Amino acid sequence: MKRKIRMGMVGGGHGAFIGNVHRMAAALDSKIELVCGAFSSDPEKSRLSGEDLFVPADRVYKSYEEMIKTESTLPEDVRMDFVSIVTPNHVHFGPAKMALEYGFHVVCDKPLSFDMEEAHILQKLVKETGLIFALTHNYTGYPMVKQARHIIESGQLGKIRKVIVEYPQGWLSDLVEATDNKQASWRTDPKRSGIAGAMGDIGTHAENLAEYITGLKIEKLCADISIMVDGRLLDDDGSVLLRFDNGARGVLTASQICNGEENNLNIRVYGEKGGLQWHQMEPNTLLVKMQNNPTQVLRTGVGELSAAANAHTRIPAGHPEGYLEAFANIYRNVAICILARANGTTPDPIYTDYPTVDDGVRGMEFIYKVIESGKMEEKWLTM
Amino acid sequence: MKRKIRMGMVGGGHGAFIGNVHRMAAALDSKIELVCGAFSSDPEKSRLSGEDLFVPADRVYKSYEEMIKTESTLPEDVRMDFVSIVTPNHVHFGPAKMALEYGFHVVCDKPLSFDMEEAHILQKLVKETGLIFALTHNYTGYPMVKQARHIIESGQLGKIRKVIVEYPQGWLSDLVEATDNKQASWRTDPKRSGIAGAMGDIGTHAENLAEYITGLKIEKLCADISIMVDGRLLDDDGSVLLRFDNGARGVLTASQICNGEENNLNIRVYGEKGGLQWHQMEPNTLLVKMQNNPTQVLRTGVGELSAAANAHTRIPAGHPEGYLEAFANIYRNVAICILARANGTTPDPIYTDYPTVDDGVRGMEFIYKVIESGKMEEKWLTM
Amino acid sequence: MKRKIRMGMVGGGHGAFIGNVHRMAAALDSKIELVCGAFSSDPEKSRLSGEDLFVPADRVYKSYEEMIKTESTLPEDVRMDFVSIVTPNHVHFGPAKMALEYGFHVVCDKPLSFDMEEAHILQKLVKETGLIFALTHNYTGYPMVKQARHIIESGQLGKIRKVIVEYPQGWLSDLVEATDNKQASWRTDPKRSGIAGAMGDIGTHAENLAEYITGLKIEKLCADISIMVDGRLLDDDGSVLLRFDNGARGVLTASQICNGEENNLNIRVYGEKGGLQWHQMEPNTLLVKMQNNPTQVLRTGVGELSAAANAHTRIPAGHPEGYLEAFANIYRNVAICILARANGTTPDPIYTDYPTVDDGVRGMEFIYKVIESGKMEEKWLTM
Amino acid sequence: MKRKIRMGMVGGGHGAFIGNVHRMAAALDSKIELVCGAFSSDPEKSRLSGEDLFVPADRVYKSYEEMIKTESTLPEDVRMDFVSIVTPNHVHFGPAKMALEYGFHVVCDKPLSFDMEEAHILQKLVKETGLIFALTHNYTGYPMVKQARHIIESGQLGKIRKVIVEYPQGWLSDLVEATDNKQASWRTDPKRSGIAGAMGDIGTHAENLAEYITGLKIEKLCADISIMVDGRLLDDDGSVLLRFDNGARGVLTASQICNGEENNLNIRVYGEKGGLQWHQMEPNTLLVKMQNNPTQVLRTGVGELSAAANAHTRIPAGHPEGYLEAFANIYRNVAICILARANGTTPDPIYTDYPTVDDGVRGMEFIYKVIESGKMEEKWLTM
Repeated sequence: MKRKIRMGMVGGGHGAFIGNVHRMAAALDSKIELVCGAFSSDPEKSRLSGEDLFVPADRVYKSYEEMIKTESTLPEDVRMDFVSIVTPNHVHFGPAKMALEYGFHVVCDKPLSFDMEEAHILQKLVKETGLIFALTHNYTGYPMVKQARHIIESGQLGKIRKVIVEYPQGWLSDLVEATDNKQASWRTDPKRSGIAGAMGDIGTHAENLAEYITGLKIEKLCADISIMVDGRLLDDDGSVLLRFDNGARGVLTASQICNGEENNLNIRVYGEKGGLQWHQMEPNTLLVKMQNNPTQVLRTGVGELSAAANAHTRIPAGHPEGYLEAFANIYRNVAICILARANGTTPDPIYTDYPTVDDGVRGMEFIYKVIESGKMEEKWLTM
Repeated sequence: MKRKIRMGMVGGGHGAFIGNVHRMAAALDSKIELVCGAFSSDPEKSRLSGEDLFVPADRVYKSYEEMIKTESTLPEDVRMDFVSIVTPNHVHFGPAKMALEYGFHVVCDKPLSFDMEEAHILQKLVKETGLIFALTHNYTGYPMVKQARHIIESGQLGKIRKVIVEYPQGWLSDLVEATDNKQASWRTDPKRSGIAGAMGDIGTHAENLAEYITGLKIEKLCADISIMVDGRLLDDDGSVLLRFDNGARGVLTASQICNGEENNLNIRVYGEKGGLQWHQMEPNTLLVKMQNNPTQVLRTGVGELSAAANAHTRIPAGHPEGYLEAFANIYRNVAICILARANGTTPDPIYTDYPTVDDGVRGMEFIYKVIESGKMEEKWLTM
Repeated sequence: MKRKIRMGMVGGGHGAFIGNVHRMAAALDSKIELVCGAFSSDPEKSRLSGEDLFVPADRVYKSYEEMIKTESTLPEDVRMDFVSIVTPNHVHFGPAKMALEYGFHVVCDKPLSFDMEEAHILQKLVKETGLIFALTHNYTGYPMVKQARHIIESGQLGKIRKVIVEYPQGWLSDLVEATDNKQASWRTDPKRSGIAGAMGDIGTHAENLAEYITGLKIEKLCADISIMVDGRLLDDDGSVLLRFDNGARGVLTASQICNGEENNLNIRVYGEKGGLQWHQMEPNTLLVKMQNNPTQVLRTGVGELSAAANAHTRIPAGHPEGYLEAFANIYRNVAICILARANGTTPDPIYTDYPTVDDGVRGMEFIYKVIESGKMEEKWLTM
Repeated sequence: MKRKIRMGMVGGGHGAFIGNVHRMAAALDSKIELVCGAFSSDPEKSRLSGEDLFVPADRVYKSYEEMIKTESTLPEDVRMDFVSIVTPNHVHFGPAKMALEYGFHVVCDKPLSFDMEEAHILQKLVKETGLIFALTHNYTGYPMVKQARHIIESGQLGKIRKVIVEYPQGWLSDLVEATDNKQASWRTDPKRSGIAGAMGDIGTHAENLAEYITGLKIEKLCADISIMVDGRLLDDDGSVLLRFDNGARGVLTASQICNGEENNLNIRVYGEKGGLQWHQMEPNTLLVKMQNNPTQVLRTGVGELSAAANAHTRIPAGHPEGYLEAFANIYRNVAICILARANGTTPDPIYTDYPTVDDGVRGMEFIYKVIESGKMEEKWLTM
């Protein structure tokens, strides 16, 4: 049976950045409809947001608890299929756990949780329930990231030796959390963000991207973590030496005090036979550098690309697809998988590629190890 | 009253490129819902497309005539608000005219019509009915295009002297219309495309972009138009010398035989005090070059930009917004304007900026003049 | 016999831009020594310049006439081998003609001469004397320009269909000739520059580059030539439609009023099978775009390049070679050819590739035709 | 008195890469002439090289010892002014020490010496003799590097917080030293290169560039150094966490196994108010990124730049100057300083800016510390 997948949202009320991103991503392919939500911990704000989002008043809830409970009592062909969690880190665990317990699939923003314990509980619950749990490490949704992974997986670069991944931003170069900046305020607050600032917010994206593209695991790391802006409570800058499980070496930099940088996630991977580079701010380009050969500029939609790249591309070459499209690829894949589940069919494996709760646990481990290493006097910490 | 705007679609069945683009653009902001459609001239294809698009079976129509007539009989709070026309050029006029006559607003793909006569009729009808008519010259929906227009309008570059606009593509470098390429086939067919090939398909985009950004009008032109691929029936390459109404000179190149080019729309404008450059394939960047100063790299979402640029930006700097987002800006604006109309209010002027039937007529004039000039032995033709 | 080639210079005294360029280009490879000069029409200035340049006082001359006459009387192993002419256009012919008549080889700045008649006389003289005459259309000295020519010559792109060449500069956006700007002053003066301004100064470079790279000849042209800055006496902006002798079409733009542009010579060539692009401001890169394939970034010194490209490269990849190195390639080749001549040997053909008096005549024809076309009411002028 | 400065060269015979670079750099400005040399440890090769270089046979020496001794006996207005040492690392010390002892100025390739002890002896000797000793850390010769230093020095970026410097190359991705590759062979040989491979060859350039541009000193470092290619004897890849003396953090990567990279030296510096980026392969561009402002693209020769940048620029904007020109800036400055010394005058301070023996000692310290840190289990090593 063909039908739209029904989404309930936790968080994402007025003034939220990422909630709106999730909604646009979910809407883009017309495979998902927003049917209900608990958009704010403030019931009145939730109500107003629901109105703006054209959600029927009786399905705008005062809390995620109410939403999950009530929805679970609705007829099967009415109630939401999954919960989208777009709250700050400290409010991931509650709704995610409850949703899973009530049998709802989950899409959750990253990092997975406030702390490690929560992460493990969620991982266990997902395993027990068998429900779909997608984490929005959205950068792996880009077609050219899938192409990069394909190139390495297929052995084109030979054994990987070196990985340089960096995610510099500049927006926290001042103590903006002291002003009325909602985005900065919770991200720099240990009570809402967790033990890490930049490393949790964007360092995990870099870690996830590096491991996704290379298929390698970070085995050891050595971090220099710092707070550059006076008065800040969590790290805003860090660099990390990496050793991967195949012997490759690497460097990861994540920083929110790189003045003038926007969202400059960039990765370079070098193997025995060639290298590649991908840059989030020009995401439809993938440079492939085979030894003693001209660099090749692979472009979304041009020439022969992997099935995975093509399956995550919507429009012909030269019509730039961006951040929302990559984000939407996660939602689209989740929708396909939920529908297949509902119909008792098996989805095309090309669409089952989205970050999972295991990626989330991996990200939390990274956060813990990197912060621990930052305090150590020994060089290496095993991850 | 807040509500979603209801869209009916003509064309855009299976295999269509631009129909899908229109749907994603309309869906992105969750302000518009697709409520009905005549997706193909083949009723069975239309039915299947409707099913895939989750359109209720009773509102998937066999023809646009049926759609427009039937919808007009539905209750006001049910029937579509506007028709989106995404068919080849020769099927713009019919549904557009009928939609206007039945009181529906229209969003129509470019160029406006098959021939000049149709264009004038539509222009007249729009004037008479007062209905909203938007033409999807989507490139003007990019925030940095709005910024470019703002910069020139505000006099920052001084009097404009030179405009270089080009739109090279490579996808028609072979006689692909002889293969099973639906996109190529109608675009190169005089019976479906009109008197022009490349000049109609992409030359009008270049013309529209140049006039939009500069606020100038092309006054005279001198064109060299050619068919480079043997067996082709319409122009696939052309270059045009331009003289603008303020004395500025220019060059416009549009070509579909520039092998290796994707969708390389690019514009440079030079004035007495500075210049600027915008490039569609990296659309979030606008270069501003003031005399004897470092080039400035303006970026979507960074620093102080015009209200217009910001109003057409969805996400923070460094998260690339692309083609669909720019396209969606037209739909979003149309939705806002239709809602205001329905509510008897006046929309914020920042949202009334979308290409209209007048831009469409202008584009048709350009097509006619450029093709005529291509055949002339005199140099200049007044436009 | 191995020895340095001896150069005498006409022009290039204090304050000259291009004289210094010629000297650095000649010096770079230590194959040429500056042995004498008439550096200025002002004898005292000439003397002071000679002193700065470490030229023996008795070989610093008061005029080119004196230099050529005197040098011709010196012993064969002492006297200059060739004259380098680096004066404004109206002082090319005199020294060039006299040098040839006295049996000296010549390197001359472009354009060849002040007018067409001079050009033909020089061409005839070179033919009669058999002497070496090199014209410094220096851009063809870049390795990647040689590579571009090789790619097209070898048929890799198939039949050429389209050429877009442009040379925008911004330095004459104001009436700088009214200030104390030596470079601007003679270039905009009909008595010193000739019938053309921008078209002679840089338009000929663009024409030369296009014909050199493609191996095609411009057959017809249609020009729009203008003076954009009030008070200026010669063209400062122009665009030209081109038809080549194989049926290819093209556009050439040369302008000195493109505010914010430095020296942005850029060429794109498209053939039946692929395209290429070269850009003077990033000269070690050549983009090759084969149909339906990733763009290849060819780089000086990387991988397999043509013998011609490699023979004009001095240092390994990644160590950028620039304008002076390309310029020096002409001098180096001339030195090799003069030495071979002196030794009665045949130079390796790879080093005989430098612009000649015939390229100079071609450039003058281009200037004349483009200026004539600019005044015509008919579209096409045969070249 | 105006005269050319006389250079004697040690090394740089046939097949040498860097010897030729030094010669072109010295020749470019016609301020230096090559008067003598000991071009090879093989006297016959030295003789043949001398012949090719037009050095009089009686001043082509069999050894540097012979050269230095003999030259010191020549009349003052004939003998060389300085020695240029372009041999592999293990042959820097001998000729440098002897040259200083005989009263000759020295230009020496980097790194300063084979080991630390040699470095200190040379430093002491330079101090004692007061002679000019320049080390060819050539990258600091680029105008835009001088501009970057000026910007930071003038406080425009505020206090520096983060430095990312990297120098990836790919040419040692295979065991090319096992083939007949002269450049690879000595660089990977502990008996000729010293204790470090990539870190000595290019890591020191990165270190020197970072300290030159920022004016900061590396205080502590933590290195991960590796040999990626089996059979290699010295490091070919390394990444280093840096802490600077003002509290700034940094990362330095130098690698010769980054397949597909040419000579990709790149530096980014971020301060409290803005950041900047410079990239050796596009050396005429300097990006300046002030907080919440458009990135500014500073370009050699465009607009208002520092006196230092302009004094190291030869030709107008848009005519790319490259590696040899930057290298030549060191030689040009040395020539000016030697001449001033000879004339008993004081050179303009703008020309006294070249890397010295102290930079060389600093580089050797870096090499020792980085290699030591690579073997340590503790994280930080004080430099």
